[in-house]
Amino acid sequence: MTTENTIGIVAGVLTGMAALPQLVKVIRERDGRQLSPAMLLVLVSGLSCWVAYGVLREDWPVIITNAFSAFINTSILILRQVYLKK
Amino acid sequence: MTTENTIGIVAGVLTGMAALPQLVKVIRERDGRQLSPAMLLVLVSGLSCWVAYGVLREDWPVIITNAFSAFINTSILILRQVYLKK
Repeated sequence: MTTENTIGIVAGVLTGMAALPQLVKVIRERDGRQLSPAMLLVLVSGLSCWVAYGVLREDWPVIITNAFSAFINTSILILRQVYLKK
Repeated sequence: MTTENTIGIVAGVLTGMAALPQLVKVIRERDGRQLSPAMLLVLVSGLSCWVAYGVLREDWPVIITNAFSAFINTSILILRQVYLKK
């Protein structure tokens, strides 16, 4: 494992962790109205572009961590819409 | 400009944009109590690691966009603490 990869993985774990409390909050309160769906869409689009960028550069830390964040934020967006209808 | 760089810059602009409404909201309401300072610190640490990672890989889109996001989130954290004391 190179220093480069180690820093990339630490970076990804930290920025990935920062998104989790929001998901937990939405699930616990069964409510995500305070979140802007437009901004979540912008964020998920951006994270998806990072995954594509990582694939082009064969950069694994970038691929894995952005795919994880995209998954978390897509879940938040879907749950927000599901809870809205109840 | 390579396709790779274009995708990286689009990715960075989108994920950078997604952080701005939070900064605007904290400034407008002069209140950031709803945000977790611990999570903002984790996020800024992660973004700083991404900048270091970008420097090691000489990856400009990663450096510029994560430095921008780190700046926005550091501003949110500082403003949160400043407004708290008022």
